[in-house]
Parts: sequence; C-alpha cells; structure tokens
Amino acid sequence: MKKPARVAITGTAGNIGYALAFRIAAGDMLGPDQPVILQLIEIEPALKALQGVEMELRDCAFPLLEEIIATADTNEGFDGADYVMLVGSKPRGPGMERADLLSANGKIFGPQGKAINDQASPDVKVIVVGNPANTNALIAAANAPDLDRRQFTCMMRLDHNRALSQLAQKTATHVNHIRHMIVWGNHSASQYPDISHCTVKGKPAKELVAQDWYRDEFMPTVQQRGAAIIKARGASSAASAASAAIDHIKTWVHGTPKDDWVSMGIPSDGSYGIAPGILYSYPVTCANGHYTIVQDLAIDEFSTKKMQATERELREERKAVEDLL
Amino acid sequence: MKKPARVAITGTAGNIGYALAFRIAAGDMLGPDQPVILQLIEIEPALKALQGVEMELRDCAFPLLEEIIATADTNEGFDGADYVMLVGSKPRGPGMERADLLSANGKIFGPQGKAINDQASPDVKVIVVGNPANTNALIAAANAPDLDRRQFTCMMRLDHNRALSQLAQKTATHVNHIRHMIVWGNHSASQYPDISHCTVKGKPAKELVAQDWYRDEFMPTVQQRGAAIIKARGASSAASAASAAIDHIKTWVHGTPKDDWVSMGIPSDGSYGIAPGILYSYPVTCANGHYTIVQDLAIDEFSTKKMQATERELREERKAVEDLL
Repeated sequence: MKKPARVAITGTAGNIGYALAFRIAAGDMLGPDQPVILQLIEIEPALKALQGVEMELRDCAFPLLEEIIATADTNEGFDGADYVMLVGSKPRGPGMERADLLSANGKIFGPQGKAINDQASPDVKVIVVGNPANTNALIAAANAPDLDRRQFTCMMRLDHNRALSQLAQKTATHVNHIRHMIVWGNHSASQYPDISHCTVKGKPAKELVAQDWYRDEFMPTVQQRGAAIIKARGASSAASAASAAIDHIKTWVHGTPKDDWVSMGIPSDGSYGIAPGILYSYPVTCANGHYTIVQDLAIDEFSTKKMQATERELREERKAVEDLL
Repeated sequence: MKKPARVAITGTAGNIGYALAFRIAAGDMLGPDQPVILQLIEIEPALKALQGVEMELRDCAFPLLEEIIATADTNEGFDGADYVMLVGSKPRGPGMERADLLSANGKIFGPQGKAINDQASPDVKVIVVGNPANTNALIAAANAPDLDRRQFTCMMRLDHNRALSQLAQKTATHVNHIRHMIVWGNHSASQYPDISHCTVKGKPAKELVAQDWYRDEFMPTVQQRGAAIIKARGASSAASAASAAIDHIKTWVHGTPKDDWVSMGIPSDGSYGIAPGILYSYPVTCANGHYTIVQDLAIDEFSTKKMQATERELREERKAVEDLL
C-alpha cells in the first residue's frame, strides 16, 4: 500500500469544496491505489458545517480515505500537505470595488501562502480555485519565499473544459476528439479561449466553424459561462469547478497525453511576451510531476491583441495588490 | 470501446442527484472503461435547474460521458435504461401523516414503475433512494409486471456504510478491516444495524466493544445519523447518500469480495422468517450481476426481536399502500 498523500482543501464546507472532497476521497484525483488524508480547512463560523462534511465523508466508508483532519487553523491544516487546494475566498459584495475585492482576498491568501511555506511538504503542489484566482495565487506565492513560485498555480481548466465542450457541441463530436485547445490569461471575462491550434478529429477547428461563430458566440459563451450557470441553476458552478480542479491536479501529477496539452494558470516566465511573474494561463504539457509551457506556437494579430488584453488586466491586478507581494 | 450504458436518474437537480451525476460521469460507478449516457429526469418546475446541471456536466468534458438527455417525460427518461436510480421523492411536509406520505409517494413511484416496465432495458437494475425507499420500491416493482421483482431494490448501503464507519471509529481501525456488517430491514429508524457477525481484523466485533455501547450508542447513532447530519450541515446527507447509491450499483454489477457481503434492500423471499414480497434489507453477496441472500446465519433472540420490529413496520407500510400494488 502506498504512503497516503495529504490533500489540504480550504473552504470545504462551501459548495465547490463539498463537491471536491468526496471525489478526491473516492480516488478520482490521485488514482485508485493512492490512499489520501484529507485536511479540511474552514473559517471559524463554518466549522459546524465542516463537521457535517466530515461526518458524511466518514459515512462513505471510502477504502482510500485514511484520515480526516478538520480545522480552522491553517498551520494544522497545511501540515505536511502534498497538495493544497485553495478554494475558499471572499466573494464580491454589493458595491465592492475591484480593488477592495483584491485586497480583501489578499488578506486571506497572504497568510495562507505563509502557512503553506512554513507547514506544507517542500514538494507541495498548490492550486488556487477561489477568485480572483490568478492574483490570489500570486499573493500566496509571494508569501512563500522558501518554495519555488512554480509550485503555485491557478485553475484555468474549468475554462479549458468549457471551451472543449462548446466546440464539441458545435462540431457534433465528442470532446475526446479535440486536441490543442488553449485558454490564455486570466480566469475572468478577459480570458482568451483560442481555437487557432485546435484540431477536431485531426482537422483544423478553424476550417470547421465560421469565424463569426468563433468570435461572437464561442468566445463570449466560454467567458461568461459562470453567469449562465448561475442563471439556470440558481447557484454558481460547483461540481464542474470541482471536477476541473481535480483534472488540474491529476494532469499535473499523471501527465498529459502525448498528442495533447492543457491550460494552466502558472507564473509567467516571459513566454509569448507576457510580463514575467504574473499568473497567466498557458498551454502546458505535464510529465513527471512538472509542467512545461508549449513554445513556438504561431500567434496571429487577433490572438496577440486578446492575449495582451488579458495580460493587461493581470498586470493591473498585480499593481493593485503590490503592497501584499 | 464498450457500448455506452444508459443510466437514468430522477430528481437530478436535487442535492443527492447533483452529487450523483458527476461521479457517475467520472466513471466511479461503472468503471473507468465504461462510457455512459446520462438520462436526467426532473419534474417540470425543476427543468430550468436541471438544464444548469446538464450545462455543468458538459463543462466537465468527461471522457466517459457519451450523451446527456434531460427531460420531464419519464417515458423518454427511462428509454432503454440499463440502470435506474429513483432519487426524487416527496418529502414529508408539516403535519403530514405517515399514510399521506406513503400515498403521495405511491403516486410518483407507481407511474415510474410502469414507465420503467414499458421503456427500460429488460435487464434494467433499479435502485430506489427516495424515501420511504423500501415501500417506494415495492410500489414501483408492483407496477412493472413484465420485469422480475428482483430487479427492484432500495438503498441500505448508506446505513451499512454508516455502521462500518461507527464501528471503525470505536475500534480505532479502518473500515477496510471490517467484514460482515449487516443492516436489516427498513431504511428508517426501525432498521437493525447488526454487528453479531462482524469481525474487525479477523476478531469478532462483539468481543471488542461493550454490549451497552452497541445497544445504547452504536445502534441509535446509525439509525439517527441522517438527523445528526442535518443538524451539523444545515442540509441533509447528499454526497454520502450519492456515494452509497454508487456503491450499491457498483457492488451489484461488479460483485462482492470473496470474504465479505453488503446490505441491500431487496424483495424478501421469506428468508429468516420475513414476510415474502416486502423490500427488506438483507446481507447479500453479488456475482455476475446477481445478488444472493446470505443464508443460515445464527440469529439470537435480541436480533430476532429487532428484525421482526423493522419487518412489522414494513408490513404496515405495505398495508397502507395496498391499493397501489
């Protein structure tokens, strides 16, 4: 039996956390032969609800679930963690300015970054799910000086999966037949879902769909999918966000298929002219627990503009929180 | 690639259905090489929310999810179904008598049984999750004359898993080390969680725990676990119920381990002196897609009384709905 992996999750009593914890305990993220210890973290007022989540997790009698820790203390929660999933964040309240939102979240993600730095495994892999995810991840990374910044990532896989799904529906095929989707940039409406490099059953996607569908329907649908879900369900995306977070870690750990890549929000190294340091979504391949940016893709003028627009937003976000970095 | 399996789920916009659908699409129930078609059924007023669930399922880009059908029409929803999971039911309203509850649900499960009879695969496997589950399953089966009654079962696995978890915690071990748990009877507070035959790491459980803990703590804790979850979470068991439903079908399809059994609510054949026909939870082994009641277990006087008490309740429930059978 393998040594159990420690998975720390913040905001586990919330809807995404609730959808996430059970699937991880079932083996969906780390595989059917990998026991897990779940380290569930919540803010004090949510501890009672968290206790309910813990009870339900126990009630599942999951063969792979070795132990559960439920706590409001991040030092305890991140202790020895191999994987950290930062799901809990402060949502935008009525009348709240963007700068207020960034700074309110900074007060959460700064201390969490420090606690991860001090407590987690030196090889910890971190994914930020809580919005504004890219800049929250930037803040956490900046507060973890002993770790490699590349250990801090943010979730763009939900956008990536949404883009796959939209293109599959339009071309009446299955997502399994699509390769080389990219969502560039920020996990916000400025993101750039890019099908320039996509193939559908081996054919270039751009030859299969009209350019105006791509610009006027596909892109806004992917960018504003979260709002559409809220409108239909009366609640925000939970199970699909959890599923994407699982996919993100699973791919990071187990690798990408030979003939494909995924989108991950990672610290920019300057590739494609993006400002180094900001958490930007790139196409990456994964192998042996590491990700590598796909290089030398041809970028046309349309793409360049879109990639720069979402980069600009991320630079502005960074500027708004520079006192926390 | 295997032929996709059709899984029909009622009440999919509800909390259990929502927790269920994504795990099935991820392969947790039928395995990592079995594509699925999800046939999601809701009542008319919940169709908009169901559309949101469908959107989120698509947004997951699940490799195994072949197709989604979302409908309020049970004939369409059960069409060709290989597995039917009846999750939606009418909860008890304020001032509602037990008989009213049974009859209100009878009006749902009778027509559903008929639609399953007419539309589903002749080999369909049905699990009822919606309460009162045993008698709802009885009503559905009675309205499906062309199917074998044994194709209709109800979920007792949640109680079974809860019992495993309680005993594991008490004996400071893992559920993986416990064998031969039984929960007999009705999925209600009258159920009888029985550790008489249990072993923990090969030792008889009864030698490891005090009899008064067993009678005064273990049994009521398992029986009333649902209420305890509601108190803690502020919401009823959803993910754990979904997980148990998945376990139920998974075991039915893929079999029990050689040295263990599970609890399933199934039509009584008179074994252990239980009235034939009622849906009663028995210990069963599964192989080749069939379940078999474990026979010839020694039943002491205490157990006999408890088994009869929960049987009595089920006979009374049957009497209350006899016009629907």
